[in-house]
Amino acid sequence: MTPDESSVIRIFGRALRTRGQSEDVEVFGLGSSKVAAAVDTLVASTDIPPSMSLRDAARKAVAACVSDFAAKGIRPGAGLVSVVLPKGITRAQVGRLARGVAEASGEFGFRVLGGDTSGGREIAISVCIIGSRPRRMPRRAGARAGDLIMTTGLFGLAPAGLYIAMSAKKPKGPAKFATQARREFMRPSPPLEFCVRSSASFSSSMDSSDGLGATLNEMAAQSRVRFELDSLPVADGLYGFASTNKLDPLELVLYGGEEYSTVFTCRPSARTRLKRRAAAMGLELCEIGRVVRGRGVYATHSGTRFRVQNRGWKHL
Amino acid sequence: MTPDESSVIRIFGRALRTRGQSEDVEVFGLGSSKVAAAVDTLVASTDIPPSMSLRDAARKAVAACVSDFAAKGIRPGAGLVSVVLPKGITRAQVGRLARGVAEASGEFGFRVLGGDTSGGREIAISVCIIGSRPRRMPRRAGARAGDLIMTTGLFGLAPAGLYIAMSAKKPKGPAKFATQARREFMRPSPPLEFCVRSSASFSSSMDSSDGLGATLNEMAAQSRVRFELDSLPVADGLYGFASTNKLDPLELVLYGGEEYSTVFTCRPSARTRLKRRAAAMGLELCEIGRVVRGRGVYATHSGTRFRVQNRGWKHL
Repeated sequence: MTPDESSVIRIFGRALRTRGQSEDVEVFGLGSSKVAAAVDTLVASTDIPPSMSLRDAARKAVAACVSDFAAKGIRPGAGLVSVVLPKGITRAQVGRLARGVAEASGEFGFRVLGGDTSGGREIAISVCIIGSRPRRMPRRAGARAGDLIMTTGLFGLAPAGLYIAMSAKKPKGPAKFATQARREFMRPSPPLEFCVRSSASFSSSMDSSDGLGATLNEMAAQSRVRFELDSLPVADGLYGFASTNKLDPLELVLYGGEEYSTVFTCRPSARTRLKRRAAAMGLELCEIGRVVRGRGVYATHSGTRFRVQNRGWKHL
Repeated sequence: MTPDESSVIRIFGRALRTRGQSEDVEVFGLGSSKVAAAVDTLVASTDIPPSMSLRDAARKAVAACVSDFAAKGIRPGAGLVSVVLPKGITRAQVGRLARGVAEASGEFGFRVLGGDTSGGREIAISVCIIGSRPRRMPRRAGARAGDLIMTTGLFGLAPAGLYIAMSAKKPKGPAKFATQARREFMRPSPPLEFCVRSSASFSSSMDSSDGLGATLNEMAAQSRVRFELDSLPVADGLYGFASTNKLDPLELVLYGGEEYSTVFTCRPSARTRLKRRAAAMGLELCEIGRVVRGRGVYATHSGTRFRVQNRGWKHL
């Protein structure tokens, strides 16, 4: 039987004896310094729909890795990139991949220094980012009863964008929503600056790329608390798009994945300051619920309370 | 036209403005510390013959990256691994990959902390290693006229091993040679300890995995000197194997690739000390020639002098 992503992580964790809870970045000491590092790989057949440009694909590979750093409030220090290229790829295509990597490194303010190239059956771009671990880094564990639960953006757009990108025929609904959704999927922007400046206020945090439901469940489980959501961060226009295309809007919001926001918890006293800072940076900070005693993740939506499942985007 | 590996590196170098000469590891500052990092990816269709176990494949992915660190005399500090897994892979197969990574990290004395898993069409293992950059790190440039040219092992075995692994029928010749050649290809052992202890004596150095000819040409070109070889490091039994199987032995030695040795130059005064240390560690240190003024790489073999070409193992 093919193991799913979390089983693969468990199998590797056992072999490598990396006991302890998984995090967005790995931290370790190097001489007297503390270092943080993360790696993310984007593979053509799984992650690059035919309508996505190679430049956007390469940019997204970097952005996905930056998202792990953003969630922990760490500024990337330097990056390495490893590309797998199939036979028959052209100079122009390689140039687009290179420009996408360069674009992202400029956008997120760090240098990609070099890397490695190999041949293979399909394009794959693996990005490794290294940075200094700050004295205080928020963990996935750390949420306490009474904390607010926040996201750095609305959800559902990127999964809708993926649906649109994968559809054979033109999806129904307003063109403006479709454009926005495609853009969110193709060119995600992790909230690096906001999180670097705000992470001292996070009691726990995690990158949301596995899907909002999976992210919240992981944080609640590691923190040994219950998350009670009363205001799901549904993107504007999502209900209309979902209903026109016969999709479940909550499925897109909670289990869609591909969204490079940060989910965090904080004391209520931090609310006003964080909202003001986010607004000044053009970021939609959403207060989606409260941490309470107990276990699990529950949401109340349109008068119904239900359990948010621990599932999300599975690559396998 | 499909660009070759060096063109891909040039295209990325231009886009990323990583001017300057390429090195085995990338170095950068992180706060007050100097960091070294390298990445290497092994892809099933290019690098894993059907007869190679997944455990050996994963071990080799790590060893290839360790080889970059060995060449610069740097001890790996920590590693991250990113695996691409095709649909249908079994738990047992994932377990073999994980054990191969664990085996290598134990063997070379550092921890692999975690990483990333994605789906794709074929197995790929990308390894990123991070370490502290020592005060003095030998470069590919740095060889001076009068220096000796040394390799930390004999050449030709791994390419012969690849030939054996890829052959449909059983290759001719002594079984002992075949076993040794297969082992060298399947389970390379970069000279990490020797180089960590000896790199202060290297005037220049480089990992030989692109092939001996390409490695020597790169070092000579970056150092702006000529390499004159008078004693090619031909593995024992290679002439016999090559002649029985109608292969060119010098092609295997100079252009075969897949050999994770370190090529270095040093002052003649370091010779005795380095040879003694290598012998004590069971390493065959080969003195293959001299650095002289001029350009290019030339070899004298069986009374004939010829130019060693700047070509090697190309993945594309």
